Amino acid sequence: MKTTIAEVGKHVNESVTIGVWLHNKRSSGKIAFLQLRDGTGFIQGVIVKSVVGEELFEQAKHLNQETSLYVTGEIVEDKRSPLGYELQVTGFEIIQEAHDYPITPKEHGPEFLMDHRHLWLRSKKQHAIMKVRNEIIRATYEFFNDEGFVKIDPPILTGASAEGTTELFHTKYFDEDAYLSQSGQLYLEAAAMALGKVFSFGPTFRAEKSKTRRHLIEFWMIEPEMAFMDHDDSLVIQENYVQHLVQSVLKNCDMELDVLERDKEQLEKIKAPFPRITYDDAIEFLKKEGFEDIDWGDDFGAPHETAIAKAHDQPVFITHFPTEIKAFYMQPDPNNEKVALCADLIAPEGYGEIIGGSERIYDYELMKKRYEEHGLEGPAYEWYLQLREYGSVPHSGFGLGLERTVAWISGTEHIRETIPFPRLLNRLYP
Amino acid sequence: MKTTIAEVGKHVNESVTIGVWLHNKRSSGKIAFLQLRDGTGFIQGVIVKSVVGEELFEQAKHLNQETSLYVTGEIVEDKRSPLGYELQVTGFEIIQEAHDYPITPKEHGPEFLMDHRHLWLRSKKQHAIMKVRNEIIRATYEFFNDEGFVKIDPPILTGASAEGTTELFHTKYFDEDAYLSQSGQLYLEAAAMALGKVFSFGPTFRAEKSKTRRHLIEFWMIEPEMAFMDHDDSLVIQENYVQHLVQSVLKNCDMELDVLERDKEQLEKIKAPFPRITYDDAIEFLKKEGFEDIDWGDDFGAPHETAIAKAHDQPVFITHFPTEIKAFYMQPDPNNEKVALCADLIAPEGYGEIIGGSERIYDYELMKKRYEEHGLEGPAYEWYLQLREYGSVPHSGFGLGLERTVAWISGTEHIRETIPFPRLLNRLYP
Ligand SMILES: [Mg+2]
Ligand SMILES: [Mg+2]
Repeated sequence: MKTTIAEVGKHVNESVTIGVWLHNKRSSGKIAFLQLRDGTGFIQGVIVKSVVGEELFEQAKHLNQETSLYVTGEIVEDKRSPLGYELQVTGFEIIQEAHDYPITPKEHGPEFLMDHRHLWLRSKKQHAIMKVRNEIIRATYEFFNDEGFVKIDPPILTGASAEGTTELFHTKYFDEDAYLSQSGQLYLEAAAMALGKVFSFGPTFRAEKSKTRRHLIEFWMIEPEMAFMDHDDSLVIQENYVQHLVQSVLKNCDMELDVLERDKEQLEKIKAPFPRITYDDAIEFLKKEGFEDIDWGDDFGAPHETAIAKAHDQPVFITHFPTEIKAFYMQPDPNNEKVALCADLIAPEGYGEIIGGSERIYDYELMKKRYEEHGLEGPAYEWYLQLREYGSVPHSGFGLGLERTVAWISGTEHIRETIPFPRLLNRLYP
Repeated sequence: MKTTIAEVGKHVNESVTIGVWLHNKRSSGKIAFLQLRDGTGFIQGVIVKSVVGEELFEQAKHLNQETSLYVTGEIVEDKRSPLGYELQVTGFEIIQEAHDYPITPKEHGPEFLMDHRHLWLRSKKQHAIMKVRNEIIRATYEFFNDEGFVKIDPPILTGASAEGTTELFHTKYFDEDAYLSQSGQLYLEAAAMALGKVFSFGPTFRAEKSKTRRHLIEFWMIEPEMAFMDHDDSLVIQENYVQHLVQSVLKNCDMELDVLERDKEQLEKIKAPFPRITYDDAIEFLKKEGFEDIDWGDDFGAPHETAIAKAHDQPVFITHFPTEIKAFYMQPDPNNEKVALCADLIAPEGYGEIIGGSERIYDYELMKKRYEEHGLEGPAYEWYLQLREYGSVPHSGFGLGLERTVAWISGTEHIRETIPFPRLLNRLYP
């Protein structure tokens, strides 16, 4: 019976064959313990000389790391192992003997590991992060499908961007100039007028020369956009969504969180509604905390976000930022035009901003004024203004950065480990 | 009670308020019928002069297409309508009066409609296609999650491509040269060695100067890759997946298929296993059918695919293509090295190829030989060869084109209508 490590629970006390790689091993005189992995999980294979015979036992003892093999044996319960089962090996067949696998159990530097990302993914920790990432992706679709959202894929190649082209990647599009999208939002607003509640989930690109543990050049973003929903409605969707992500990972990635040594108690606390503090109050709080490098009108940096986050167990919404430091399309607060109906969501434990969102301007005259103020003209922007001309309605939306969210929930210090093949400044390989 | 058209079934004989756009209207002396849409669906609003009074009735009669409003009324069952319900209007409040909406119920040419894609999405037909697309996306995640696949997002920006750079979009990546990915397959193979069964689902780019009803410049592809699975195992996954897509759309998009006037009987026939014919047999068949423009060693064009498809009710696998016309990484058939362990899946009814897949070469020496034959050298390719060095295992994978699949299942003639904002030769707007 062929099976996988993820499925061994269905084959207790049966003999199975599994295609695996040797992850690690140790042996004494008459018994060897093989740490085996097949991608779906890790299992210990126990190989006893008296069972398999001298020749196979000797071969097992000399197997190299990452050698691929078909291993046969009986699945038995083993309460001590994280999986709950082990494999009592009765035989194996080598597919390919590996020699000098570059990533050994010893310590390697980050640049070496990044150069070997195609192999590094096989390690227990990277495997666990990818499984958490996968669960966050799965739970995202589950949440937005259940809420009646329609997936809309905005174009990556666009004629222009609403936020300037300095941080955009440029390519020739036959005879035209095109840029890689930094956000699908403008397109999603058009789609929300057609389909009500929509979301995108795709790669976005920022040609930014920054090199921090929170920045990727290419990253994935979830961008929901909702017709007939105001700023407050949007915050409720956001907190329910983030709560759903955390609960899904807790429920379905328990083993992975253990591998990552994630403090699960921190995650178990996460419960909507999340605290909301205004930008004004945040500035005041920071000043009290002794920050002298921030004044009303400044945007927050990582240390400010971390200080605010540390004051709460929950993710925190910072609302009502000055319109001047936010995007041109954000709806000003009718009670105070100097601030926008917007919020950033700051993750706990210093993982930084994971969501930015706002109500959008829907008044045609105000949007036209913004176009003039920001010098938005020409055919690349005409269509977006038309959304305010033909049955404009109140609407709101937000964007969640996938990798920052993975970093937070999995407890991963550096964002480069949260995406299969990171693109960083000076890192286009492998 | 605020609600949406999708949810009216929960509010029968209740008074509700819905944010909507006026899609169409007709009126007689004392009664007006408003076709209303809110993105989640379409509903008829019936407005009677004696109920709402002279003033509101007159206003209703003069509402323009795409005017946005909050409409209030009672939900009643109506067996004649596709939705099953209608709204007996008791009042409404205009959000924004639209004037001269460009897309009227009269006929418009395709270029005009494409120029107004941001508005055209509001039409009943485009709305239905986007819902079918959404269901195919939803069902894709459902299928691969249930089968234990892990979602892996390969990079879009890559240092080089295994299939040459002539059809790739180029961009400067700081001081380096980068290209937009045409396929994530090579990366997915690395990930399959780490996670067993993986799939990607993202945008891909082909800078091809072709202008057919089957080609997009930017399109979405699903690419599963499976360790320890051979060509035959892969075909079974493929047919089960495609069957699941069709059944999901039949089950969850019945109303949309009606709007699209899709022949549902054709879809109801789709049942795995699908017929498999070899390339050799396909050539013989085509010659018998009178095709004189094809010989052994040629690739099929659209007319050939259509002729083969028309001979079957089901999607058809064409297997064992000549290695020379297929990608360098495809496993040759051990019984006949001139052909590869590969298959294309041709959709019924002339919608063309929707899947291409193969077993991959896993023998290090053979892959090294292919590198030499294809001039693949330098750091951009080193890592891929290493997958055959450190515990290489048999593995297979395939790619399904989302938009062609949407075209087939929704019965849409031209692929440009199957993606929210199509990118075509000379079409980068909106
Ligand atoms: Mg911020
Ligand atoms: Mg073909």
